[in-house]
Amino acid sequence: MRVNVSSHDLKASDHKHHLHPFTDHGALGIDERRVISRADGVWLWDTDGNRMLDGMAGLWCVNVGHGRQEVVDAVRAQMSELSYYNTFFKTTHPPVIELSEMLAGIAPDNINMVMYTGSGSEANDTILRLVRTYWALQGQPSKKVVISRKNAYHGSTMAGASLGGMGAMHSQGGLPIPDIHHIAQPYWFGEGMKTDMSEDEFGLWAARELERAIEEIGEENVAAFIAEPIQGAGGVIVPPATYWPEVKRILESRDILFIADEVICGFGRTGEWFGSTYYELKPDLMAIAKGLTSGYLPMGGVLVSDQIAEVLHREGVEFFHGYTYAGHPACCAAAIANINIMKREGLVERVRDHIGPYFKSRWMTLEDHPLVGQARMVGMFGALELVPDENDLSKRFDNVGKVGTITRDHSFANGLVMRAVADSLIISPPLTITEEEVDHLIATARKTLDVAWDDIRKQGLA
Amino acid sequence: MRVNVSSHDLKASDHKHHLHPFTDHGALGIDERRVISRADGVWLWDTDGNRMLDGMAGLWCVNVGHGRQEVVDAVRAQMSELSYYNTFFKTTHPPVIELSEMLAGIAPDNINMVMYTGSGSEANDTILRLVRTYWALQGQPSKKVVISRKNAYHGSTMAGASLGGMGAMHSQGGLPIPDIHHIAQPYWFGEGMKTDMSEDEFGLWAARELERAIEEIGEENVAAFIAEPIQGAGGVIVPPATYWPEVKRILESRDILFIADEVICGFGRTGEWFGSTYYELKPDLMAIAKGLTSGYLPMGGVLVSDQIAEVLHREGVEFFHGYTYAGHPACCAAAIANINIMKREGLVERVRDHIGPYFKSRWMTLEDHPLVGQARMVGMFGALELVPDENDLSKRFDNVGKVGTITRDHSFANGLVMRAVADSLIISPPLTITEEEVDHLIATARKTLDVAWDDIRKQGLA
Repeated sequence: MRVNVSSHDLKASDHKHHLHPFTDHGALGIDERRVISRADGVWLWDTDGNRMLDGMAGLWCVNVGHGRQEVVDAVRAQMSELSYYNTFFKTTHPPVIELSEMLAGIAPDNINMVMYTGSGSEANDTILRLVRTYWALQGQPSKKVVISRKNAYHGSTMAGASLGGMGAMHSQGGLPIPDIHHIAQPYWFGEGMKTDMSEDEFGLWAARELERAIEEIGEENVAAFIAEPIQGAGGVIVPPATYWPEVKRILESRDILFIADEVICGFGRTGEWFGSTYYELKPDLMAIAKGLTSGYLPMGGVLVSDQIAEVLHREGVEFFHGYTYAGHPACCAAAIANINIMKREGLVERVRDHIGPYFKSRWMTLEDHPLVGQARMVGMFGALELVPDENDLSKRFDNVGKVGTITRDHSFANGLVMRAVADSLIISPPLTITEEEVDHLIATARKTLDVAWDDIRKQGLA
Repeated sequence: MRVNVSSHDLKASDHKHHLHPFTDHGALGIDERRVISRADGVWLWDTDGNRMLDGMAGLWCVNVGHGRQEVVDAVRAQMSELSYYNTFFKTTHPPVIELSEMLAGIAPDNINMVMYTGSGSEANDTILRLVRTYWALQGQPSKKVVISRKNAYHGSTMAGASLGGMGAMHSQGGLPIPDIHHIAQPYWFGEGMKTDMSEDEFGLWAARELERAIEEIGEENVAAFIAEPIQGAGGVIVPPATYWPEVKRILESRDILFIADEVICGFGRTGEWFGSTYYELKPDLMAIAKGLTSGYLPMGGVLVSDQIAEVLHREGVEFFHGYTYAGHPACCAAAIANINIMKREGLVERVRDHIGPYFKSRWMTLEDHPLVGQARMVGMFGALELVPDENDLSKRFDNVGKVGTITRDHSFANGLVMRAVADSLIISPPLTITEEEVDHLIATARKTLDVAWDDIRKQGLA
């Protein structure tokens, strides 16, 4: 790595040569960018000497916290033996075998096989091809349609973004691709409150949108329903308590596969190994990534139920699909070390029994702030809904997203990384955060809300 | 990593828990699989104590050879400072900046920006969304169709596989997605010989298929033409000498973007940094992966021309696209170390001036074998076309692919990894292979052809 390059020169070079994801480059000034150079635990440092608390665990992924030398050492040991080999032509290797065994061990009982990808996007993309192939092999090629939800996030490939329900993404590049159908999301604060239904009634209504869609499209044409147990990028949308039980009822009586996107919910985020466990769901396929390696190296995968695996093992069947880096040895080593840490330190139980409840109790205190209409949290991720008038929760800010971004920028300036989704603030820190660090996070969030509230009123936005 | 697990137990576990890419699992016996456990230079070792020469450089990727401690050390150093951070929210980090600068340095003059992905699939997938978004921003939203070629390979996501022209892949999962048009490929041995054209005439004809497609679809509806300079997974298909100059002529007079898929051709494989350089092409976008890190860690990217970058930097423009692992710090470190090795050891020039010509001269001697209808090679990748009768090259084997697979299996058994594509054998070793190792490779290939030829005749296939 180069030394003695000034922070400004780094930023100028970044401006010249690097296209960022999801970024308005025209609006991103050279010196406005931050160069993150070091991380340890929940802390980040940039090249201007600032320290920040990483309230997003990188991007919902660094579940075991930054700077785990144990993961680095495992990667180094594996790379020194075998840095790369493919798994295509009747070949395999020890780390991919060990990881597959491990994942079969933590997955629900009916899931015992893994197909690897390089990311969550590639996992969902694989799943779309796979469910259609499965039904064709079952003699039901008409079952092609996958039902998803508005404001879902399932990745950024053409298929992933099509499965997702993000309007902005659909507005570019010819999306969505055919045979994907989007129903309403179970978003009480954003949408349920506009109705005359109670939260529980709204949960049932949203679930029954699935039933209505199946009836409209025809069960014989529906391959699967895909959902995040809790929508992450959509805004940590925790469905009403009535939602998942009703979805389960609807799917139980029908021959439709259920795909759980566990990219964010998986690996302890909810206080269970998977979001599906948290809601007692029985998926046929699970997309995994992020927490799988805690982001130390890129990796994704698809957990495949016995029922689907059996069909893929029939004589003469080949699923013509696969990625060069599928089951990459170094990434497997990172995942194994990461899962070993989670098990040894009991991080899942820690979220469920100790730090999760502590964090939630502190997070919920922010609901009394005049800028906050609702605070919510499950396990170790949550959101604050920002509103112009705490006494009239039906009101929203004009110019959606502006107040969210202003508040997010204040949070960064105060040394706390939170993410803005429209006019909500999202939190999803490493699962290893201490009580003391939670207190610091909450204090900084409150200070941020104060400063933002002043700023917003000064600007005449509330 | 676990120790003391027997080779058989590893294979049994692999069988139970691991779904391989592009594999007929019903036909893959437990003990038929090979567990690759170590690699160094061009050599692989499996858990049964066999040593093999890796004639495919992993999967067209390990350009600097296996076991480079320098890459491992660079990854370790980076991971110890900062294992992961995202590049989404106005943030960046030193290794992604250094790598972007480096790539701008080796890319053609009109290309100075990089958008990162996790793989070649994600790179091509990104490009499909990007070219359509570019034209929409230029006020020409009707320009959506991307023209590709039959038997092209552009990855395994829904969009990548749709851009690709592989019939088997298109037969599953509802592919191809709309607005992708496939024209003929410039495959002289496979298709040109069936015509009454000379090789040069066939090259012109295949190029003009692009012109005919543009006229048919309408220039106002065509966004781009995508092509590998030399088709890799299609069978190392070296186009006739007339092909690329004619394609250039056709594109020069038209407002259509040219996308070079450099996933296999890039990073020295042709004896130039990119296949586009080899053929003097001027792409607007280049998909990169594989040789970018020599496969030591997963990484892909899109090299973006100034013309397109300028549009993406306009005020208020945001391309709603991006991957969690885009520009992953550890993968950047691997890429930087890999490119530094290539530069310091002059590997590109070595392929162009020394080991490439040597390898080719030896490879071409295999053409005299009765099983070989044609040997071909550019830089450090090539193919052998297997035929039933060397005296009548119009004849092909019945049951396409059977003889290729038989011969490939003999090659493995003889300790040489080659890949079968239909009835051809593919070679693409590390660029670091020595003359002595080339001699060994050629001797093993010849022995393999002898054994396979006997076997094939015994089975009555020729």
